[in-house]
Amino acid sequence: MLINGTPYRSIWRTDEGRVKIIDQTRLPHRFETVQLQTVEDAITAISDMLVRGAPLIGATAAYGVCLGIVGDCSDNRLETVCEGLTAARPTAVNLRWAVQRMQAVLAPLPPVERLAAAWLEAEDINEEDVRANESLGEHGLGLIRKIYEEKNQPDQPVNILTHCNAGWLATVDWGTALAPIYKAHAAGIPVHVWVDETRPRNQGAHLTAWELVGAGIDHHLIVDNSGGHLMQQGQVDLCIVGTDRTAANGDVCNKIGTYLKALAAMDNKVPFYVALPGSTVDWTLDSGDLIPIEERGEDEVLQVFGRQADSGVGLELGQVSIAPEQTRAANPAFDVTPARLVTALITERGVCTASREGLLSLYPESAQP
Amino acid sequence: MLINGTPYRSIWRTDEGRVKIIDQTRLPHRFETVQLQTVEDAITAISDMLVRGAPLIGATAAYGVCLGIVGDCSDNRLETVCEGLTAARPTAVNLRWAVQRMQAVLAPLPPVERLAAAWLEAEDINEEDVRANESLGEHGLGLIRKIYEEKNQPDQPVNILTHCNAGWLATVDWGTALAPIYKAHAAGIPVHVWVDETRPRNQGAHLTAWELVGAGIDHHLIVDNSGGHLMQQGQVDLCIVGTDRTAANGDVCNKIGTYLKALAAMDNKVPFYVALPGSTVDWTLDSGDLIPIEERGEDEVLQVFGRQADSGVGLELGQVSIAPEQTRAANPAFDVTPARLVTALITERGVCTASREGLLSLYPESAQP
Repeated sequence: MLINGTPYRSIWRTDEGRVKIIDQTRLPHRFETVQLQTVEDAITAISDMLVRGAPLIGATAAYGVCLGIVGDCSDNRLETVCEGLTAARPTAVNLRWAVQRMQAVLAPLPPVERLAAAWLEAEDINEEDVRANESLGEHGLGLIRKIYEEKNQPDQPVNILTHCNAGWLATVDWGTALAPIYKAHAAGIPVHVWVDETRPRNQGAHLTAWELVGAGIDHHLIVDNSGGHLMQQGQVDLCIVGTDRTAANGDVCNKIGTYLKALAAMDNKVPFYVALPGSTVDWTLDSGDLIPIEERGEDEVLQVFGRQADSGVGLELGQVSIAPEQTRAANPAFDVTPARLVTALITERGVCTASREGLLSLYPESAQP
Repeated sequence: MLINGTPYRSIWRTDEGRVKIIDQTRLPHRFETVQLQTVEDAITAISDMLVRGAPLIGATAAYGVCLGIVGDCSDNRLETVCEGLTAARPTAVNLRWAVQRMQAVLAPLPPVERLAAAWLEAEDINEEDVRANESLGEHGLGLIRKIYEEKNQPDQPVNILTHCNAGWLATVDWGTALAPIYKAHAAGIPVHVWVDETRPRNQGAHLTAWELVGAGIDHHLIVDNSGGHLMQQGQVDLCIVGTDRTAANGDVCNKIGTYLKALAAMDNKVPFYVALPGSTVDWTLDSGDLIPIEERGEDEVLQVFGRQADSGVGLELGQVSIAPEQTRAANPAFDVTPARLVTALITERGVCTASREGLLSLYPESAQP
């Protein structure tokens, strides 16, 4: 997507073959690119969350394998590199998936052929991600266009609420929840986005708002408390969110707070869509309540990061503590939205109901024998 | 309530007759008391939100009338003082109510008798507020005790979720939503409070957490996104919140985000109680959707206030900006929770259903002829 008119991906190879990423921990305050020179760089980028979002983590790991076997393509080295990458963030499904895919391609090859094959396979993983998200975006565009036409107020934008960041920064390009919005904007449909700030890490305020600024898409930041009221007031035409893991019955596990918005959408008859590539479906789980919920550190709740308003000399970043020193915090990072609250799933293969039947209609190869 | 073992109210007269308040804009980082010496001081304290919470604003205005007529008890002066106070925050119902009550008592008196009568009436307003909230707390205690006994796990606390600050800092003492919690704690019932941080102004993190620290009540701060998940996990036994205005049908208008928690409570069969003194009922409104919702400034969303973590020299307070500079924000300050989502109303006269019939059973004098 565009940054100041220049097309970017969240990870890319330069003409000289170098791997570069955007340091997402500094956005929206600073735009800094970082070169990954070694597999250790890739591991640190993942574990310190310079890159985040399951698809992007997978893509970064694939390049990490390439960087790791430069100069030593032996079996031992390949195994060490893959183990190190997999351990960088053990909960991310796409990380393991990408590393295993690289390993499956490279291990059978003679060492001398591995490096060239690795770069090719990593490119494939990246390109496939871009294609899947763009396709998902086209299917989502159809839903937005339908709502726009049903509204029948050509000058009025379609108002879309989203939570967290499921944009191009979370993938290699296009994003999941934001891909349909980018497609609608490009198709000339006026859109306006309500951006949940998404405490505690504020990915909405930091990343989604920044993406939308870059794309020139009209939006307003809101606190996570506001969405229900806006829906009551008829100011939300649809919601689109991403998902970190989708159970086989259509329950979706996404950033904490998603469930509350889905409840409000149901209460106000606002369509609630979840956008996902098929790879996020965990066919081994019959329902979402089996998904383990990560409990993260309390400092994410007790402190808020941003740029300091009073700084007179350049842009200073820092954080403020909001609670009494004696107060402890709890910080569950995800919640599960039951399929009954989800209007439909938007995938790279089309739109389906949030149900086992719906998912199997698009992914019949996943039916158990 | 207690601060470091010393009993305080949110506004009080010293032995020398001075009126003092706590500067709530500095909590929880700094505990500073401020003396109100003139009616202008009182007006500034209300408009700049050194005091906030409808009952406390009313109490402050009553003392403001006293301060305003020291040295000049004429009709003209009384009228000027009352007008100035009423304009300090025109949306707060209790402000107008308290000023009108003072005026009704003082205007008929000979000027020479007014000042003494003013101090007495202001004391009455303060004492009545304390009594109403304590009574409300006793009624709420009954509900908490019942839930504790039904849980039948004596060592396990009753887990109570609250939103915003409806504690003693929002009133003269005891609070509304927190009064039952203080009463339960005093009665030896183990309680644990989930404190919604309550963006954008973070009154939960700033004020409710600080109150609970002072009272020695176990609590955890959570982001506003977390409550639904905690209810899904069975970690919330009941919710108690306050209300800024209650329609005659039992709909409640409270801090933005209250509605989302009420939806989650209903979805998970968690009791959702609203605590209020009868004075917040607006008998002229048949339903909550007639209540105008204040839209506040966008800086409350775009910036977060707190103490700076890196400061090496004493406690520095400041704010950080969380969004891109080009991003605008929307900031509705309240939402309306429909009566159908409210398990019961807790008032100083007892507990009733959230309905016209329920309210009239406690306030029969409000029935229209």
